[in-house]
Amino acid sequence: MDNIDLRPGERLDDLQYRGLKIIQDPAGFCFGSDAVLLASFSSVRPGGSVLDLGTGTGILLLLLSARTKASRLVGLEVQHAVAERARRSVAWNGLTERIKIMEGDLKCAKSLFCPNSFDLVVCNPPYGKAGHSFSGDSSERNIARHEVLCTLKDCVQAAAWAVKASGRVCFVIPPLRFAELLALFEAHRLTPKRLRTVQARPQDSPSVILVEGRKGAKPGLSWGPPILLLENQGMTEQARRLYHMEP
Amino acid sequence: MDNIDLRPGERLDDLQYRGLKIIQDPAGFCFGSDAVLLASFSSVRPGGSVLDLGTGTGILLLLLSARTKASRLVGLEVQHAVAERARRSVAWNGLTERIKIMEGDLKCAKSLFCPNSFDLVVCNPPYGKAGHSFSGDSSERNIARHEVLCTLKDCVQAAAWAVKASGRVCFVIPPLRFAELLALFEAHRLTPKRLRTVQARPQDSPSVILVEGRKGAKPGLSWGPPILLLENQGMTEQARRLYHMEP
Repeated sequence: MDNIDLRPGERLDDLQYRGLKIIQDPAGFCFGSDAVLLASFSSVRPGGSVLDLGTGTGILLLLLSARTKASRLVGLEVQHAVAERARRSVAWNGLTERIKIMEGDLKCAKSLFCPNSFDLVVCNPPYGKAGHSFSGDSSERNIARHEVLCTLKDCVQAAAWAVKASGRVCFVIPPLRFAELLALFEAHRLTPKRLRTVQARPQDSPSVILVEGRKGAKPGLSWGPPILLLENQGMTEQARRLYHMEP
Repeated sequence: MDNIDLRPGERLDDLQYRGLKIIQDPAGFCFGSDAVLLASFSSVRPGGSVLDLGTGTGILLLLLSARTKASRLVGLEVQHAVAERARRSVAWNGLTERIKIMEGDLKCAKSLFCPNSFDLVVCNPPYGKAGHSFSGDSSERNIARHEVLCTLKDCVQAAAWAVKASGRVCFVIPPLRFAELLALFEAHRLTPKRLRTVQARPQDSPSVILVEGRKGAKPGLSWGPPILLLENQGMTEQARRLYHMEP
């Protein structure tokens, strides 16, 4: 797949994982480590379907296409230029049969998707309150990081709509907003079933939390050990394995 | 205070903290480290009031009486023999002016306490579902550890009733039931504001979670670093300080 155009300012990055490549615009929004952490945390049955709400570069679906045997992966992205770039990344990797990038607003999930239609919904939502950013800032980066076009509630609502009964919903969230996420899960009958904290070193506060909810499941949370990223010599063995997507 | 009787089977234990002593019955229920962790996690303003729901041996209030300048500490205990023993511990330590042990059922909190009347409510609830214990077991220990006489919901309901507006509610809970606790906090307008996980070693899953909610507060959770209890040579310095109630 070498006939895919790069537009001015874009670059082709190597994901260092099973030959995957991704198109990014450094002046726009580039994926962060949270997406990689969420991809490694999420699981889906072979042949299953995955929806990524606010797919951005498409990083989560590219990684999940290689890490799982999911047969249908759908990414929803509201920003035209970002969706189009993700679509070219999918094409570059020869994955157009498995991964579809849809352009659309997750606030309209009810008109975009059938209810109860995905085995797994993943979401790396905008973390920041809209008011905490420059309000006139409609850059790719600001829309991806702040609640400019959608709130955390919109994300959970869309996920709860699209996921199957007993299906999984996986989010990554900073500690500050973790309790809000759990309250929204509760309000939408998504029972928290699995949780991992991510922290730099053993004595640090967590930087982000990974949570899996299951629609309509009984209470009972499985809370794994912290994911530790750094040690004296640099990255931990755990982090290295994780960034290369080994379980 | 050396004119306090010990009953058959009871022993007087030294809390190794500011000369405090506690009466326990090893055949009944003895306090665990979770109570000590919760005491070190909880804070209250000088002159403030504290309610301990299901006070058991009275350990939490004894420690809080020494660690804080709270002026009124009330413990509610449903089991007669346990309440009576806690009362003798309070007397032995010469604390009858500051600490009151009430005998009563926390399910009747609305008739026992005025609404919005405590600055801090602490609770080390029974962790286990009633069905998971031998149903006919009404021992002190089983009542303290399983939902025989009250559920987690009863505890949160009582706490939300008794705590002042903007007051604090501190719970200790195992990970398995953590999401349930947060859902109950949410349902009772207790906003999770502070959280610590407790784990043996850096690579272990947490054993218990400490959570502080504030009645009617805005969302926003402060999640501190894990409390680590063990290292190669035994207890960590952090755990030693904590068990001796240094902040």
